[in-house]
Amino acid sequence: MTLTGQNFIGRNRSANGSKTFKGINPATDAELEPQYVEATSDEVDQAVRKAEEAFNEYRQESKAKRAEFLEAVADEIMGLGDALIERCSKETGLNEGRLTGERSRTVNQLRLFAEVVREGSWVDARIDRSDAAPDVRSMKMALGPVAVFGASNFPLAFSVAGGDTASALAAGCPIVVKAHPAHPGTCEMVAGAILKAVEKTGMPDGTFSMVQGISYDVGTALVTHPLIKAVGFTGSFKGGKALYDAAANRSEPIPVYAEMGSTNPIFLLPGALKEKGGEVAEGLMNSVNLGVGQFCTNPGLVAYEESDDAQVFHRSLAEHFKKAGAGTMLTSGIRSAYKEGLETLLQQEGVQLVASGSGNGSPNTGVPHLLKVDSKHFLGNDDLEEEVFGPSTLTISAEGKADLIEIAQNLQGHLTATLYGTEEDLEAYSDLITVLQRKVGRLIFNGFPTGVEVNHAMIHGGPFPATTDSRTTSVGTSAIDRFARPVCFQDFPDSQLPEELKDKNPLNIWRLENGKHTK
Amino acid sequence: MTLTGQNFIGRNRSANGSKTFKGINPATDAELEPQYVEATSDEVDQAVRKAEEAFNEYRQESKAKRAEFLEAVADEIMGLGDALIERCSKETGLNEGRLTGERSRTVNQLRLFAEVVREGSWVDARIDRSDAAPDVRSMKMALGPVAVFGASNFPLAFSVAGGDTASALAAGCPIVVKAHPAHPGTCEMVAGAILKAVEKTGMPDGTFSMVQGISYDVGTALVTHPLIKAVGFTGSFKGGKALYDAAANRSEPIPVYAEMGSTNPIFLLPGALKEKGGEVAEGLMNSVNLGVGQFCTNPGLVAYEESDDAQVFHRSLAEHFKKAGAGTMLTSGIRSAYKEGLETLLQQEGVQLVASGSGNGSPNTGVPHLLKVDSKHFLGNDDLEEEVFGPSTLTISAEGKADLIEIAQNLQGHLTATLYGTEEDLEAYSDLITVLQRKVGRLIFNGFPTGVEVNHAMIHGGPFPATTDSRTTSVGTSAIDRFARPVCFQDFPDSQLPEELKDKNPLNIWRLENGKHTK
Repeated sequence: MTLTGQNFIGRNRSANGSKTFKGINPATDAELEPQYVEATSDEVDQAVRKAEEAFNEYRQESKAKRAEFLEAVADEIMGLGDALIERCSKETGLNEGRLTGERSRTVNQLRLFAEVVREGSWVDARIDRSDAAPDVRSMKMALGPVAVFGASNFPLAFSVAGGDTASALAAGCPIVVKAHPAHPGTCEMVAGAILKAVEKTGMPDGTFSMVQGISYDVGTALVTHPLIKAVGFTGSFKGGKALYDAAANRSEPIPVYAEMGSTNPIFLLPGALKEKGGEVAEGLMNSVNLGVGQFCTNPGLVAYEESDDAQVFHRSLAEHFKKAGAGTMLTSGIRSAYKEGLETLLQQEGVQLVASGSGNGSPNTGVPHLLKVDSKHFLGNDDLEEEVFGPSTLTISAEGKADLIEIAQNLQGHLTATLYGTEEDLEAYSDLITVLQRKVGRLIFNGFPTGVEVNHAMIHGGPFPATTDSRTTSVGTSAIDRFARPVCFQDFPDSQLPEELKDKNPLNIWRLENGKHTK
Repeated sequence: MTLTGQNFIGRNRSANGSKTFKGINPATDAELEPQYVEATSDEVDQAVRKAEEAFNEYRQESKAKRAEFLEAVADEIMGLGDALIERCSKETGLNEGRLTGERSRTVNQLRLFAEVVREGSWVDARIDRSDAAPDVRSMKMALGPVAVFGASNFPLAFSVAGGDTASALAAGCPIVVKAHPAHPGTCEMVAGAILKAVEKTGMPDGTFSMVQGISYDVGTALVTHPLIKAVGFTGSFKGGKALYDAAANRSEPIPVYAEMGSTNPIFLLPGALKEKGGEVAEGLMNSVNLGVGQFCTNPGLVAYEESDDAQVFHRSLAEHFKKAGAGTMLTSGIRSAYKEGLETLLQQEGVQLVASGSGNGSPNTGVPHLLKVDSKHFLGNDDLEEEVFGPSTLTISAEGKADLIEIAQNLQGHLTATLYGTEEDLEAYSDLITVLQRKVGRLIFNGFPTGVEVNHAMIHGGPFPATTDSRTTSVGTSAIDRFARPVCFQDFPDSQLPEELKDKNPLNIWRLENGKHTK
């Protein structure tokens, strides 16, 4: 498809603004054609109004049709072929292998949500029949138009057709996407694919819109628009918290699901250091450097108890970091922030540089760094827990188990925590597990946090400041719940009830009838 | 039990403050002994710290033990006997029949949550096993210490041992209750009962605390305390919104579930007016005056299309209101607000007083009032949708169906909307249902909104400003979800998983295994 640089107001193209920008190839700092036109507040308003107009029709589509639509989006994205991967690679510096994998993740995610919609039980239908009391039935229904903000670090899987889009569309919400200015061409291609799917499967115009923008104004206009009923966001703490505050200060506050990353602490337990310290060191270096360290689940803190085994492990880790090669970071801004973050960390009392890798010659190279600190300095300085987005990690040596647990107790909210150990370690450190359960959305045993499966049980979330709403996930099928609320029908005749709540259960979904799970 | 006027810091009594107040009998304006001592910020802090200390033990109690505890709370409340009803009636002006019924509701609610805990499937356990990918399992776990604010209008069912308390304790959260200053003695008695149950069933000290207070300081100290992780509130818009704002402005924002009441519009459709206008008029008058109109679900707006049948209905309604007797309102403050609210309404353009009932001679009598307005004036003045807490209702005459639907479209969020009509009406007005689904938490056909069943399907909630979180309910068993968040375990050995997630499903709960509901 030919890129136009325009905004998508439902099926209409529009470019009325005067502010423009271009994609940039971070491997060369060269500008990429075409020029993109930031949406005006009037264009944002038109997109949201169209979403509102589409809402009642879209949310009442049969589940079969909504599932077909999601599958058609997946098919149309695949139909973009190599051109999508090529453009995306140019805009992000990510290589084709990685992007091909991310595309699979993206389309599989859409297809999984299609299954969830088709199966239908996610609406949590509940029926209480009684001779002595009113007949009461409830189910979840879509919230209304949703604003979606994609991340720069997953230009496919957490962007225009990413998890927030898939889950909101699955729930029955039309969406308006704010395209990410770091990959505007990728966004335009994917938006075009979604709009083709809208048309082919007969969804109402306004089910999907996308506005471009490089300034904060576009996002703010979207989140503060009275017809927007929820927000999905993946990105920085600063960006997510600003949207949360804007939404909380509306005359009608709305939910904001902002996934703002974290430092994903790893706890290396004594048995692991003894039995497989070398293996862990290599795995850790790879996890830190995966995707040039640009994952929300990047392990940025590694705590362990000081010991001879730990010293052997640490020397091995340093060797791996010295040999580690650099990649090109997503944008010059991210690269600068990474450099500044490292410099700030190194100025903190007690923090030492242990090893660093080599650059790759590109202007936006992200060089691997290994830093260390002891628990005394770590516990005395909250700044050391801050995320440094990029391929670095900070190891923390503790003086025994109690000290290690104190580190855990003092953590703020993170997406993940990892325990590396033997099964005996895990038993001996069950109090550490108890502490960590309160700190994160996902606990991992003997694995690395990078790599987030898309399935029914996955939780990609966690207490603030990892997210603005720990009660949900942004990956996995239960994300659909974020965009719905329960509505209750009392004493309605069967004919006027939604299909999900009719006596004969025509959709054959799981329901809670008088407190019993039944189908 | 002898009332002391003290605060409960876990099992300890404490009264270090200098600010004092007494309960007041609204039927006579007489003060009631003893004197209550407002908690100091230090006492609030102690209560919250105790809750935090109790948390890990309490949340990990077996489900059988937690269920026993909830049932013991119910038993201890019943054990307070007539003394509770007598004190409560003195403090609230509500009669013994009403309060005996409300006590049943309160203890049945606790027992229903005990059943939910014992059954165990509410945790939404999910397991994804795969040979090709990590083993991922998730379930809901308690959030942490919860602050509960009871309402004045349900001194038992929405107060110290009300719905928020029952659902938070069921989820595994210790709670600190802010007692309502309009019924401090009732609060103290119920708190004493809960603490007896804590002791008898061996729950940790700090599982329950209660602080007294008449100024906003106590509530603010509670909601802004860093260890409080969620807030349940039932009361006014002003009070609920202030807590929401305080919680959103914390350095770690937390969820606030504030149920702030609403005007609960009723739509009378033509068939109902023709076939049973007289019956509806009598039922409506009774619903408006139930509990002296002091229900969050009180029907404060009644819209219908102008017609001969409507005029007959309206005359009948006026007759009923003229004959309606008054009751004593809960507090002099509520009575003043009711009077002022009526005066403000009557000053609005187009609003007319149709009929009013008679007083009951008490200083805080709440006299029934029937007001009317036409749709033109109603649609031109947002203030007419505001709740006037008390036994009044405003009828709105519309000029045909389109006008009626416009009224619905312009509504803000409410707890309920009611349709009165024949089944043919309902079919003919399905577009009205579609509009109202977006406006409320509960839709009622041919009933009145006052009366909220406690069961599995009930939704007592709705879009802002009815509540601060439309995704939940404050009545019914799904309220338990408000006080939990999902936690995910990746590749954990079976021995270290919570019972709910172990391979053999030892608790025999419903789970989602590889996407299939199974037990």
